[in-house]
Amino acid sequence: EIVAAASAVLRDEEIRQNRLPLAGKHVLITSGPTHEPIDPVRYIANRSSGKQGHALAVAAYEAGARVTLVSGPVDLADPDNIDTIRVESAADMLSAVKSCLPADIAIMAAAVADWRVASEGAQKIKKDGSGKPPALGLVENPDILATVGHHESLRPKLLIGFAAETQNLIDNARSKLERKNADWIIANDVSPETGIMGGDANTVRLVSRDGVEDWPEMDKAEVARQIVARAAAALDE
Amino acid sequence: EIVAAASAVLRDEEIRQNRLPLAGKHVLITSGPTHEPIDPVRYIANRSSGKQGHALAVAAYEAGARVTLVSGPVDLADPDNIDTIRVESAADMLSAVKSCLPADIAIMAAAVADWRVASEGAQKIKKDGSGKPPALGLVENPDILATVGHHESLRPKLLIGFAAETQNLIDNARSKLERKNADWIIANDVSPETGIMGGDANTVRLVSRDGVEDWPEMDKAEVARQIVARAAAALDE
Repeated sequence: EIVAAASAVLRDEEIRQNRLPLAGKHVLITSGPTHEPIDPVRYIANRSSGKQGHALAVAAYEAGARVTLVSGPVDLADPDNIDTIRVESAADMLSAVKSCLPADIAIMAAAVADWRVASEGAQKIKKDGSGKPPALGLVENPDILATVGHHESLRPKLLIGFAAETQNLIDNARSKLERKNADWIIANDVSPETGIMGGDANTVRLVSRDGVEDWPEMDKAEVARQIVARAAAALDE
Repeated sequence: EIVAAASAVLRDEEIRQNRLPLAGKHVLITSGPTHEPIDPVRYIANRSSGKQGHALAVAAYEAGARVTLVSGPVDLADPDNIDTIRVESAADMLSAVKSCLPADIAIMAAAVADWRVASEGAQKIKKDGSGKPPALGLVENPDILATVGHHESLRPKLLIGFAAETQNLIDNARSKLERKNADWIIANDVSPETGIMGGDANTVRLVSRDGVEDWPEMDKAEVARQIVARAAAALDE
């Protein structure tokens, strides 16, 4: 806590001296997986650790921004000096994100579940002795990135999405950019052999309407600093 | 590590002096949830933290046993001096459990998924634009407790299962005792309002062919010591 307080004081001083590019800006970041309940004890999850999203929140804070972090269930501590809202499901995350607008920049790094279970069991679902499993009907979740991208009045000036794919990376990222009205998509290949999901390093491509940039492998903190530096520059254009 | 080594030396001395009831015995314990893959990034999980199972492993070790712990994905560290095998799915857990027999006592505390996804996607499943979600066909998992309970040659002398329920606790536990050929079922109500799943305390009932014992709320370490003490006494009968 002393370290956190000292770091806040030092940052305030840097902000006063106009040395931080995102001073006075509000940056909204989502991070981690969502959990979609099946019944009181079971849920659908994904392997996102939240490391990249949380690193982005820290990088934006260090660049002088006021940061709001909306995080799914992760094993990471809430970052110091950052307003962190913890949620479970995609529906909860959408509500939290909406309540945090307006923002100058939004970076949607969370791995939001595409589907949830249509009717959550009020009690633990039991085997019924027939050997037949229950039908697990799914319905599509609200699309958080698209909702923010198409927001009539509160779309952030710069909106960055993530695309974690195991194939057709660039095609999927380009299509996401258009459909969701994002400015950039940070695309990464999360096939298990890459070790990216849950790991400390990331290899990303920045997909924008100007083209595709391949970035070298970096640790997630460095990827975060590069994205934030680029975002700050873009906001000035 | 120094503490772990010292504790092992002290325990060896207590074993030599015949002060530990499970000296010379092998105790097999399962703990935690299982994760059942949907595709490379998504899976079905449950809220088991592994705290009760890991506490049982420590209690059995402290009672002098050689302990094998088969654990699903948990945030807990592997306990000192205990042979721990980490697994993901119910199928993996069953293989690990079989490979660890024979055991004098088996305590199956893991929350094993009843169902897995019938055909795991080799690639991340994508929305296909139709708005229709994918069908998530489930199949029943192998029943680890029943497999061990009905093992022709290697059924442990004392076999203890767990029943985590949100309703019909005792009926479900009694039926489990019979179907799975267990000696005891430790039954607990894991409705969200109890805070038991993931929490540090537990309120259990011991269901055996002799009847049902209600135990008071205790922390999970104390529940573990009581179960292990009772198990050691039962083994002597």
